[in-house]
Amino acid sequence: MEKFICIPDSFQGTASSLEVCRIMSRKISEVYPDSEVIAIPAADGGEGSVSVFLKVFGGEWVQTEVKDPHFHDVQASYGLVDDGRVAVIEMASCAGIPLAGKTKNPELTTTYGVGQLILNAAQRGAKIIIVGLGDSCTNDGGCGMASALGVQFLDREQKAFIPNGGTLMDIHYIDKTGLAKELSGVEIITMCDIDSPLYGLRGAAHVCASHKGADTEQVAHLDQGLIHLCTRIKEDINLDVANIPGAGAAGGMGAGMAAFLGSKLKMGIEVVLDMVHFNDIARDAKLIMTGEGQLDGESLCGKVVDGVAKRAKALGIPSVAVVGGVGEGMDGIYEKGLTGVFPINRRPQDFSESRFYTEENIAFAVENILRLVRAYGN
Amino acid sequence: MEKFICIPDSFQGTASSLEVCRIMSRKISEVYPDSEVIAIPAADGGEGSVSVFLKVFGGEWVQTEVKDPHFHDVQASYGLVDDGRVAVIEMASCAGIPLAGKTKNPELTTTYGVGQLILNAAQRGAKIIIVGLGDSCTNDGGCGMASALGVQFLDREQKAFIPNGGTLMDIHYIDKTGLAKELSGVEIITMCDIDSPLYGLRGAAHVCASHKGADTEQVAHLDQGLIHLCTRIKEDINLDVANIPGAGAAGGMGAGMAAFLGSKLKMGIEVVLDMVHFNDIARDAKLIMTGEGQLDGESLCGKVVDGVAKRAKALGIPSVAVVGGVGEGMDGIYEKGLTGVFPINRRPQDFSESRFYTEENIAFAVENILRLVRAYGN
Repeated sequence: MEKFICIPDSFQGTASSLEVCRIMSRKISEVYPDSEVIAIPAADGGEGSVSVFLKVFGGEWVQTEVKDPHFHDVQASYGLVDDGRVAVIEMASCAGIPLAGKTKNPELTTTYGVGQLILNAAQRGAKIIIVGLGDSCTNDGGCGMASALGVQFLDREQKAFIPNGGTLMDIHYIDKTGLAKELSGVEIITMCDIDSPLYGLRGAAHVCASHKGADTEQVAHLDQGLIHLCTRIKEDINLDVANIPGAGAAGGMGAGMAAFLGSKLKMGIEVVLDMVHFNDIARDAKLIMTGEGQLDGESLCGKVVDGVAKRAKALGIPSVAVVGGVGEGMDGIYEKGLTGVFPINRRPQDFSESRFYTEENIAFAVENILRLVRAYGN
Repeated sequence: MEKFICIPDSFQGTASSLEVCRIMSRKISEVYPDSEVIAIPAADGGEGSVSVFLKVFGGEWVQTEVKDPHFHDVQASYGLVDDGRVAVIEMASCAGIPLAGKTKNPELTTTYGVGQLILNAAQRGAKIIIVGLGDSCTNDGGCGMASALGVQFLDREQKAFIPNGGTLMDIHYIDKTGLAKELSGVEIITMCDIDSPLYGLRGAAHVCASHKGADTEQVAHLDQGLIHLCTRIKEDINLDVANIPGAGAAGGMGAGMAAFLGSKLKMGIEVVLDMVHFNDIARDAKLIMTGEGQLDGESLCGKVVDGVAKRAKALGIPSVAVVGGVGEGMDGIYEKGLTGVFPINRRPQDFSESRFYTEENIAFAVENILRLVRAYGN
């Protein structure tokens, strides 16, 4: 029996990764009626990631009250899978852009609630806590999150405070000794949606803060704050987080996860691939099918197609990406391991028109790829 | 050594079949450096067909003076290939729409010049004369062509005349006895660009005469004329041409070729496939690659992709169509024998934009098809 693996990203704005999985699976069953299809919607750590984990592994939602980006109370949820052994938290649930409301200002917002969710999961007995970064409205380098877990940030007067993006410069000393005991023995894994460094032109403030409401002057100030935080982490915690890939994800949250919680930073797709034991399940597959809305140079920086291509290459299994469009800088994806790229556009149509045909277009591309594989592969 | 066959139609308005062949061949040589590529630009009988034959088989242009659609003198050309044994004539060269000038009126125009070209080729010793229909400005059922070759059309007063679209009703008797002796022993093959019947709603007048300048009333009159011609042919030549596929091609020229010259009507692609001995050259191919600008229900009526698919199926060789777009009614093409359809649109773009990227888009699609084939086919 032939085995096929589908592991697509979402087609942003037109189809979720779950929907793409459904379309791919249906077409595979049509062209290869007796095949085994393993469909894994990919998650990158941003909004929707918990849903994906619950869909793939089963489990339950946990709801609890934590602080929102402005220190107001909010009901937030995370997922418990594998009989509660693994918790999956997306930081967007309590520090996401929609929660910033009208007063979008990454100098003021906090990740405090994320720390509370982590604590809650640890208290419930989770042994692995996956924290998905992405879609955040914060730029606090994870200091809010760490504060909720007992890390103390002291100012020049030795007074503890909870730093946000605007007050990172005021940190004089970081004291980790009070870190919550509940975290001991817990593995914390961070899913990053971007592999950027902490500061500088490719860093958190310069790349993302303007989307979070910062003006040019604020961006510069936020970047200065992250540089200062980096120095303090280096001196007080003895760790250089500046260039860890993903340190700059979610307003420096990546750096904070690494520095304060000793978490490994992984690209989101790598976490998913590990969680599903991809190398085992895909070992004897006939074809690995991935995809995303737009394949371009950014896709090569650890995004879904990139991660899948690398695994496919290592396993020696053909892999294709079904994509909404192709942009500049994607050529390297072949070297990463992808066999072929197949855009879904059946007709020359502007996106404003074609977006309504995403499902039919994906189905058409998948069917014809499979027809070609069948002509040679059987 | 792997062998690949490219036999695409043109991408109307953006790339000729010759150009598409060049793009496909280049990509094949890149992905399969040591392969053999046989590239055959397809022709349908319309404008450009002679160029394609000369490109594929080598040969020379012959120029001669004949009558244009309005009986004025015009220099027209045809091709001689295979050391002069085969002549290739496109009727558009002396009865094409551009030659109708400002006075487009299919009641007045004639195919007389086409008969003169056929006679010229026979006089030069051609043993096979291929006549390509298509892109004509006429609706005379080939009566002009036949007149030039000695067929007599008599009116009620037994007076010979040269019927055009408007005077078909005046034919009282057709006398073939004077047919040019030069044609004896010559095989005449007609390439049709459409498989329509002679008259009726799917016939020559209703489908094409309005493009040739006829108004509604004229279309009805032209159709009546073709019905009358059909009756005369049945009674005087003992042949029923009404429903021969292709009888209605080029204003009924198909019917005239069959009735007056005893020519076989074939779809253009079938003539090309036979001429290149397709079944022999493609027998051991790894992949047959065809394509066209728009694949839809019309494509299934004997057009290039359809013809190629049928041969590929008979040979048991995978075949793909690289297409500019996909329209309604194309699903049957798989049953005809096509393995897969791959639209070239790398991005969701309107044709007004994408048309400038036709070459890159075709190259991209071809490369990825070949990469997938290579992953399984080697």
